[in-house]
Amino acid sequence: MSERTEIAELGEFGLIDHLTKNFEIQNVSSVLGVGDDAAVIDHFGKQTVITNDLLIEGVHFDLMYTPLKHLGYKTVVVNVSDIYAMNATPTQIILGLGFSNRFSLEALDEFYEGVHAACDHYGVDLIGGDTSSSQKGFIISCTAIGEVTPDTYVKRSTAQKGDLLCVSGDLGAAYLGLTLLEREKRIFLESPGVQPDLEGEKYIVGRILKPEARKDIIQFFAENGIQPTSMIDVSDGLSSEILHLCKDSELGCVLYEEKIPIAEDARQAAFKFNLDPTACALSGGEDYELLFTVKQDDYDKIAANTDISVIGYMAEAEAGSHIYTKGGNKFPITAQGWNAFNKQ
Amino acid sequence: MSERTEIAELGEFGLIDHLTKNFEIQNVSSVLGVGDDAAVIDHFGKQTVITNDLLIEGVHFDLMYTPLKHLGYKTVVVNVSDIYAMNATPTQIILGLGFSNRFSLEALDEFYEGVHAACDHYGVDLIGGDTSSSQKGFIISCTAIGEVTPDTYVKRSTAQKGDLLCVSGDLGAAYLGLTLLEREKRIFLESPGVQPDLEGEKYIVGRILKPEARKDIIQFFAENGIQPTSMIDVSDGLSSEILHLCKDSELGCVLYEEKIPIAEDARQAAFKFNLDPTACALSGGEDYELLFTVKQDDYDKIAANTDISVIGYMAEAEAGSHIYTKGGNKFPITAQGWNAFNKQ
Repeated sequence: MSERTEIAELGEFGLIDHLTKNFEIQNVSSVLGVGDDAAVIDHFGKQTVITNDLLIEGVHFDLMYTPLKHLGYKTVVVNVSDIYAMNATPTQIILGLGFSNRFSLEALDEFYEGVHAACDHYGVDLIGGDTSSSQKGFIISCTAIGEVTPDTYVKRSTAQKGDLLCVSGDLGAAYLGLTLLEREKRIFLESPGVQPDLEGEKYIVGRILKPEARKDIIQFFAENGIQPTSMIDVSDGLSSEILHLCKDSELGCVLYEEKIPIAEDARQAAFKFNLDPTACALSGGEDYELLFTVKQDDYDKIAANTDISVIGYMAEAEAGSHIYTKGGNKFPITAQGWNAFNKQ
Repeated sequence: MSERTEIAELGEFGLIDHLTKNFEIQNVSSVLGVGDDAAVIDHFGKQTVITNDLLIEGVHFDLMYTPLKHLGYKTVVVNVSDIYAMNATPTQIILGLGFSNRFSLEALDEFYEGVHAACDHYGVDLIGGDTSSSQKGFIISCTAIGEVTPDTYVKRSTAQKGDLLCVSGDLGAAYLGLTLLEREKRIFLESPGVQPDLEGEKYIVGRILKPEARKDIIQFFAENGIQPTSMIDVSDGLSSEILHLCKDSELGCVLYEEKIPIAEDARQAAFKFNLDPTACALSGGEDYELLFTVKQDDYDKIAANTDISVIGYMAEAEAGSHIYTKGGNKFPITAQGWNAFNKQ
């Protein structure tokens, strides 16, 4: 960055005006946006869905290898992904930021550029926020609001025995991208002259730095009359999310290792790092894919979408939750997915 | 605190279950609360109002003299106050917390006790949240949602020339309470044996540590058919809030010093600290009273409520925004209210 404007020069309200002036309202339901005590949303005939995430520097992101623009984009993605996981359409976000005086206005502008790009892509309106100083680091609080046709939202707790367990896209790549970035950071800290070696790793790095939420899957459900019986987004790793669906629905499940979708680029990266690709998918997290269950009758509809994989099925609670490996073994699924395997 | 349970013992989801298990849903519109990707609110026939505040340790509060239970209570108050400032009724909150491992479960329980007490008092439901570790300090993100009869919400930008400028309760006491607590903290740090001297200062200390939002004023408006023409809550000091109404409504105003409501306890405390009580009211902040304008025709209705003071009126923009002092002088109102006076 060539310029540096001290945020103190603008004052809090000048700053909010500056940061939000390029956001145009996209939804009729956004009756009143930024600039008052609260925002107003009009959702006649719809139900409102709302979620909040707190992202803290040093815990959720590392600014050493995360461009602020990407961080802004990802902030929106992480939140709208939670709205999609309810089978709802995101319509608004509210952003609260805390930052120390180490941040310049140009740095915040970069962050908001990413927020803006994501708002455009997902069709959501930034309708409010709060900015504050922090003693240390960058703190992001994002609230996302969405709407859904009454009683078509999808909970985690309503899967039924025999339902098919499905996941969108592919898994594990974000974790491998993070592993690569952390390795390059260590190398850089030890030998600052060495340039990062990210050649050929665009896919996995993109998955961690600029993930996308699965708007298309929700649209596919609507267009094909599919009502998932339960759903959750994959933010913490496949095994943790599967166990959420099982616990909340009071069921067990059967998962087939060979059915877990893993991109070829991720598989190659895993081998380079001496990691098991399946372990990365089970425990890696940050993929922001959708994990859901559908009735067996919907199998044909689901199979028509090549970006959805059927990876198992729901079983009765007494049967527990298990994964069948490619080698023909059966292990209980744990929140740290691969731990059970490591003990063998 | 006699007990200390490490938060790591529960895990994130165990922690959320633990913290939220005593919250009962109070509003029919809270269709789905804590425990899924997002919450669902049903607001048929109403408009939804939403606001978010980020509270950061060391910036917004000092745990050295802020009991966690009071902090939890105040977190809710600060947010519902923004909802009332829209002439709306708060119905739900979502809480995001970041905390370092210095916090025990018992500490979080105390915080949630305060949240619970405030939810009960204001009739709001805790419907979701996010907990996270932080590298340093306690970080609180609170989103409040409210409902309002369509098109009766009150903005900052709709005051008219000639409207009466009114404020609820009294001002400046919270700032004096803070001043007292900061003084006692300094004394304690210099001489740890000395007990804090808060004798007789219950009112001002209560105003900073356990403020209340003006639910009663919104109810009074509804019961008496009063529709304020503009409104804002007093979080940053009277002069800053007046300037918001003036700027957003493209008006000026006249404010009378003698009409500014100041409690006798606050007046006495100000004299002890060698501060001007009016300066404390103008620049102090954190009073969480409501500042609003009404049509002149509503004067009789407003006058019937002894807890509302008419402190001036809105003027045309060209006239500027001025305060007439008790001594008969006229000064421009600035965001730091009293600065203009100090220069004399």
